[in-house]
Amino acid sequence: MRAKQFGEIALLEGIRRRVGAPRGPDIRLGIGDDCALLRARQGEDIAVTTDLSIDGRHFRLDWHPPEAIGHRALARGLSDLAAMGARPVAAFLSLGLPPQLTRPGGRKAQHSWADRFFDGLLGLAKSHGVPLAGGDLAESPVAVADIVLIGAVPRNRALLRSTAKPGDLLYVTGRLGGAGAGLEALEARMASRKRQSRSIPPISHRLRESLAPHLYPQPRLAQGLFLQRRRLATGAIDLSDGLSTDLHHLCAESRVSAQVDAAALPIHPGATLDQALNGGEDYELLFTAAPAVRIPRTIAGVTVTRIGRIGAMSRRRPVVSLLTTRGQEPLAPRGWQHFSRQLS
Amino acid sequence: MRAKQFGEIALLEGIRRRVGAPRGPDIRLGIGDDCALLRARQGEDIAVTTDLSIDGRHFRLDWHPPEAIGHRALARGLSDLAAMGARPVAAFLSLGLPPQLTRPGGRKAQHSWADRFFDGLLGLAKSHGVPLAGGDLAESPVAVADIVLIGAVPRNRALLRSTAKPGDLLYVTGRLGGAGAGLEALEARMASRKRQSRSIPPISHRLRESLAPHLYPQPRLAQGLFLQRRRLATGAIDLSDGLSTDLHHLCAESRVSAQVDAAALPIHPGATLDQALNGGEDYELLFTAAPAVRIPRTIAGVTVTRIGRIGAMSRRRPVVSLLTTRGQEPLAPRGWQHFSRQLS
Repeated sequence: MRAKQFGEIALLEGIRRRVGAPRGPDIRLGIGDDCALLRARQGEDIAVTTDLSIDGRHFRLDWHPPEAIGHRALARGLSDLAAMGARPVAAFLSLGLPPQLTRPGGRKAQHSWADRFFDGLLGLAKSHGVPLAGGDLAESPVAVADIVLIGAVPRNRALLRSTAKPGDLLYVTGRLGGAGAGLEALEARMASRKRQSRSIPPISHRLRESLAPHLYPQPRLAQGLFLQRRRLATGAIDLSDGLSTDLHHLCAESRVSAQVDAAALPIHPGATLDQALNGGEDYELLFTAAPAVRIPRTIAGVTVTRIGRIGAMSRRRPVVSLLTTRGQEPLAPRGWQHFSRQLS
Repeated sequence: MRAKQFGEIALLEGIRRRVGAPRGPDIRLGIGDDCALLRARQGEDIAVTTDLSIDGRHFRLDWHPPEAIGHRALARGLSDLAAMGARPVAAFLSLGLPPQLTRPGGRKAQHSWADRFFDGLLGLAKSHGVPLAGGDLAESPVAVADIVLIGAVPRNRALLRSTAKPGDLLYVTGRLGGAGAGLEALEARMASRKRQSRSIPPISHRLRESLAPHLYPQPRLAQGLFLQRRRLATGAIDLSDGLSTDLHHLCAESRVSAQVDAAALPIHPGATLDQALNGGEDYELLFTAAPAVRIPRTIAGVTVTRIGRIGAMSRRRPVVSLLTTRGQEPLAPRGWQHFSRQLS
């Protein structure tokens, strides 16, 4: 991790203190040199993913608590590892911040925005045993956080997007649409604040609950590892852009089609069918399995639901279709577009 | 690599076409899934580094050719691998761009800014045999590029900042101050353009030559590998922030002091002593070796110069001192501060 100027040196020292010395057999060298050094076990492949989060695009400084922004940045990367069935080895963070976000201030006067961002990020990291092993810090006119996750998975055993087969059944972990519903609740709250032009309305217990899937999504690492270790899944992807869009990705990479049964979808309480299909950022796992394979109803405490099946690719039918009481209709990829409305 | 909207899909497809299928025994899976999969050889550690480049901070869209911005982003990461004596395995890029930079336009009408950025980045990648194996793309109000380099180095053989010993001699590859001098030439040219408020003055042959170390620095991968494989160096760091600052980093991590002989410094033609000491971004290697070890005068075509020695850490002397005709004086860490003057 390299520091340049403004409060960077102080911030870097603070992070080093919080992160401590690298621990465990996987980390040979953490923050402080030109590179970190990691060690995979014999017979393992290294999984690498990077996810960029930008103010106004993936989060909004004026909407999201800093803890949630840190949590969500890391959750995006961990969810990619989960979708490969990989165990996390280390996280790296490149963080660009306007200087005022590194200075103490606001309601929690002793803590800067950056401190609270790291509270959220390191809290989730700790709960999954993932060390922050390095990264980069820089002053930036816009807050940006690029999270890099390094994982490990036994050779030739990673869950891929490209290996689903016609005839496979389609499953999803957890419930869908909760993040989309939470975002709409947040949008409504912020719009009401704007209209009233005064203090933020109090967060009711019900609102807090409805925001949780959006603010603090839980990556399904244990579920991905379970599927990989027991060789249950033929293909997998995480639901970051929304079921309709991510299922299209899976079908494109596997060269198959898919049919989703609307009645079977595990819609999150308070969410709509549209949010479950197109909401995005649920970070659940979408996976396929051969029809003869028995998939447990819950994996590590999270429900698993069969929501459809995989078919052959054909010019005569849509890549993804939705079965409803009205019959079968094409399901277009209309995954949620983050904060694109606020930009450009 | 994940795409969201604007021209991202087209840009992503263009990159996938240019990058092609992953090649070589190290890359099991490239762009297109939730993670890339890499494979280290038995007995190797994995080296990881991330480097964030931000418009206005590490480069300026109005000053730097897009090819140079792409080249320099990758060079920063490769130089970190060089400083560890690691061989590069794969690069990942998280790129945030304003939409207009992804659209064709400008003098090379068929090419977007992004195309030319990738020309520079992929050109350097090819010359070092490093595949681009993944990353992330997003719309951003400010151009940001986070480069991630994954390398491999035999276990316990990486060159570290923390292992220089009192009595060691201090060496540097190549020449110093060329990047700093190039930047000053570029600044002068841009200031003159601003004064004249008209077209850019033509680039003379001499100017082009003087800008090269700044625009297209060459990471010293072959030299770092040579030192690591022959076990010649006791410690190493790359010169990204400037000799004065990076030597302080080396001393702090190794808990030693250092003395630099000003007369011995291999100053780049056209550069000043100040630029050689504090200019930054030369991306040469600074390394230490035991006095009995014979260091070649050139490694893979690049000169190596002995510039000083390592001493014990002591309260009675400065951490880094400079020996000149006036005697010995403290050398403060005054490494170049990128474009901080333009921001904040």
